[in-house]
Amino acid sequence: MVTFSTNATQFMSLALKLARKGQYGVQSNPMVGCVITKNDEIIAQGYHQKFGAAHAESNALAEINHQANDATLYVTLEPCSHQGKTPPCAQTIIDSGAKEVIIAMLDPNPLVGGKGVAMLEDAGIVVKIGLLESEAKYLNRAFIKKMTTGLPFVTCKIAMSLDGKTAMSSGESQWITGEAARLDVQKLRANHQAIMTGSGTVLADNPSMTVRLNDVNVKPLRVVVDGKNQITDTTLNIFSTDAETQVFNMSNSKLNNAGKLVLSDILSQLAAQDINSVLLEAGPGLIGAMVDAGLVNEFIIYTAPILMGSDANSMVDLVIKKMDDKLSLNIQDIRMIGEDIKITAALK
Amino acid sequence: MVTFSTNATQFMSLALKLARKGQYGVQSNPMVGCVITKNDEIIAQGYHQKFGAAHAESNALAEINHQANDATLYVTLEPCSHQGKTPPCAQTIIDSGAKEVIIAMLDPNPLVGGKGVAMLEDAGIVVKIGLLESEAKYLNRAFIKKMTTGLPFVTCKIAMSLDGKTAMSSGESQWITGEAARLDVQKLRANHQAIMTGSGTVLADNPSMTVRLNDVNVKPLRVVVDGKNQITDTTLNIFSTDAETQVFNMSNSKLNNAGKLVLSDILSQLAAQDINSVLLEAGPGLIGAMVDAGLVNEFIIYTAPILMGSDANSMVDLVIKKMDDKLSLNIQDIRMIGEDIKITAALK
Repeated sequence: MVTFSTNATQFMSLALKLARKGQYGVQSNPMVGCVITKNDEIIAQGYHQKFGAAHAESNALAEINHQANDATLYVTLEPCSHQGKTPPCAQTIIDSGAKEVIIAMLDPNPLVGGKGVAMLEDAGIVVKIGLLESEAKYLNRAFIKKMTTGLPFVTCKIAMSLDGKTAMSSGESQWITGEAARLDVQKLRANHQAIMTGSGTVLADNPSMTVRLNDVNVKPLRVVVDGKNQITDTTLNIFSTDAETQVFNMSNSKLNNAGKLVLSDILSQLAAQDINSVLLEAGPGLIGAMVDAGLVNEFIIYTAPILMGSDANSMVDLVIKKMDDKLSLNIQDIRMIGEDIKITAALK
Repeated sequence: MVTFSTNATQFMSLALKLARKGQYGVQSNPMVGCVITKNDEIIAQGYHQKFGAAHAESNALAEINHQANDATLYVTLEPCSHQGKTPPCAQTIIDSGAKEVIIAMLDPNPLVGGKGVAMLEDAGIVVKIGLLESEAKYLNRAFIKKMTTGLPFVTCKIAMSLDGKTAMSSGESQWITGEAARLDVQKLRANHQAIMTGSGTVLADNPSMTVRLNDVNVKPLRVVVDGKNQITDTTLNIFSTDAETQVFNMSNSKLNNAGKLVLSDILSQLAAQDINSVLLEAGPGLIGAMVDAGLVNEFIIYTAPILMGSDANSMVDLVIKKMDDKLSLNIQDIRMIGEDIKITAALK
């Protein structure tokens, strides 16, 4: 097993932090960061800033005029080996004179994974793989999911009370969480390429489903699952000019034997449009169907410090009879957002 | 407003930490810690270890043979001024020669609060009050609640799933949380003077309701709320010899006009037995009634990373119709216990 020094871990950690700065710009590419060192001193850094623009390695190398003799590059993803919108990064690195490349994770694309490493090694560069690999995989979990399964990564966002309720029996649900949590949801939306909901939510609440952040200009696709062709009113807020909207209904989606929309087909159609990440913000019915179909990867639950009582609605319509059949998750993160608790949990 | 130095805050923080060491021994007394310094160096420390035994100040002073000339005492609770099971601490401090006493909080007993301070000041000792006061009040919140209201502090413990469920519709609920959380519950029980449940839980699960910890020997009173005089089987586990048990039913409790047990009367009866703290471990019915009666102070919720589905039971039977009528809480603490999330929240 390859081991890494504390310094190396810190450099890769910085590279991951840089990578994250591309979060709003690089979709549907992965986020990538790069740190270049000589004698364990940082001499350059860069990250992939915008889809179609220069890769992290190029941006970092540009800082030192592509003169990286005897330097070490820390890259969060294997450098590419193919001519795409930009020249292959592996060649750029070779040309720079670098002596060593540390990579957090290989390219998850089975067609190219390992090829960048081979190019570097063939040119005599020492390559080490796997430093902070799980952190790197977590950062780009949506990109990896789409690349390896052909389906987007689905995050289900829920705002609920301490007693697990998401709406009063009357439907009333504004506002369960506080302002800080609602702002956090805006950032969450900006981090996804599509925001999905059901026709019931659209008709009941007439939401805009847009990103409202001052300094971020992204427009995730608005997706409505409309199993009964109910969305006909074009004056609904989801049809505003703020962002694109796609309604999936019986006329443009696969139906199963029961005449219901095949949810995995909807996700495949989104993946075909290069959408890696979908934020599901829906009522308990659609959430339950998505979970039941095994299509939800992660929950982000904002829990407000309130009790809404036993008449209120639960977060997911999903019938489970025995403890043995319960669904298990891994808690990824818990933190306070204002007065609310934010829980991130991945389905196992 | 009195201000305190960073050193002083650290000494009081240590005193609070010492106080907590008495958690299993001092009930129904408050937990108290004491640190003695000279020229900002710690020269002695102590805490109240056992109900009926020496107070924190005495224990600390004993370490230096009661010679505290020119020293400063940091005490988490106002020194007592009356002869009880032990001599008045204020006098002991005066006799030691100390020049200054820093107190986190005054005695919450309205009959004696401030008298210890007066004794010290009358003897020429400088007294400052309020350093880490809210932390000190939080530590002894049960003692303060009983002293100021005549009712014990009630903590409601719940084990639930991420979707807010505490049992399958069949009643099955073993085990929602993991081993670490279940061990934590044992410590929680040991921290309370009584453990309260309802007859429904006793008849359905036949729980022992004892503390099972290797190194802690406390036996909280077991309390059963038995509104329909259903607990007649003396072979039930709650009647084991491990601890005392009290069953409140129609023959020994006040009834309201509807013929139901008056829950506040049960708590008053417990307070009359010097019980400051009650841990409520019950089904949604009794929890709902206790919350509705305004008798629950704090929730401790162990949230397991599982989904139990929409057929499962919610944590509290409590009908709330409008968001405006929701119950609000303050999150006191969130942390991971093994794979589960532990949330401590106080009702506002």
